[in-house]
Amino acid sequence: MKEKKEHDLKIRKATSHDVSLILRLIKELAVFEKMSDQVTATEESLRESLFGATPFAHVLIAEIGGIAVGYALYFFNFSTFLGQPGLYVEDVFVLEKYRGGGIGSALFKECAVIAKKKKCNRMEWIVLDWNPARKWYDHIGGKSLDEWLLYRLKGDALDKLADIEE
Amino acid sequence: MKEKKEHDLKIRKATSHDVSLILRLIKELAVFEKMSDQVTATEESLRESLFGATPFAHVLIAEIGGIAVGYALYFFNFSTFLGQPGLYVEDVFVLEKYRGGGIGSALFKECAVIAKKKKCNRMEWIVLDWNPARKWYDHIGGKSLDEWLLYRLKGDALDKLADIEE
Repeated sequence: MKEKKEHDLKIRKATSHDVSLILRLIKELAVFEKMSDQVTATEESLRESLFGATPFAHVLIAEIGGIAVGYALYFFNFSTFLGQPGLYVEDVFVLEKYRGGGIGSALFKECAVIAKKKKCNRMEWIVLDWNPARKWYDHIGGKSLDEWLLYRLKGDALDKLADIEE
Repeated sequence: MKEKKEHDLKIRKATSHDVSLILRLIKELAVFEKMSDQVTATEESLRESLFGATPFAHVLIAEIGGIAVGYALYFFNFSTFLGQPGLYVEDVFVLEKYRGGGIGSALFKECAVIAKKKKCNRMEWIVLDWNPARKWYDHIGGKSLDEWLLYRLKGDALDKLADIEE
């Protein structure tokens, strides 16, 4: 079964015709991450930010027999120490009933292929500490950077920092 | 003293004429982070990746009386849940003898101003767990995302993932 799935698998770049599909997959991911309340993306915001004048990220769609079963979204970050861009994987997601057939790893591999094509010497992503995908990330040689903490500033706190001119 | 420093402080966007200065500041940051052995950036790589056909990041220079005393480097990341770009601060660094005078916070504030101008609803960064700057990050309302782990794949492991076509 696993082999059959991989055989039929096609990974393609998303286009502006896919915004409705992409939004649906993002919402499914949010359910998986128990963060559905945090999704405020709309077809319009995705169309503008992914396919507008300045695309901020790129999307790959995984299809089996023409049916979309998952996606990956990545963009380029930057390492000052390397003086080079890196590839940052924001999301890799596969619909629940298609998991376990190598689709997520195929999406990840495609990101790695793109990283090498774009001369990026590293690929990074974040993962929830309880996500079982960590086992595979460790298996492929991914290193978790335990000394680093991710910080986020948003809402009123961001407004306050931006407005204060002291 | 603090007020005088802030009064003289100027923050400007870096240009391609600053690559030598930027590399010097990056190397000073690496000393502070105890990671000097990891710096492989060169003036050429910075010129290409920051000021070439596709700039991957933006640099702000902090000057006091025309002397460069620190820098910030940021780029735009992307939140699928928001369907919007965010501003990611890769580095904020101030030379040791100029610390404590509000220069780092002024660089951070300028990043927040840019985030709001670019309609980013959030700003993110990572910090080493022992970095005393965390106190200020907490003070301004930054939240550390403790459930998330940062993973990195590089070198042979990245090559292997990119090459395997199984």
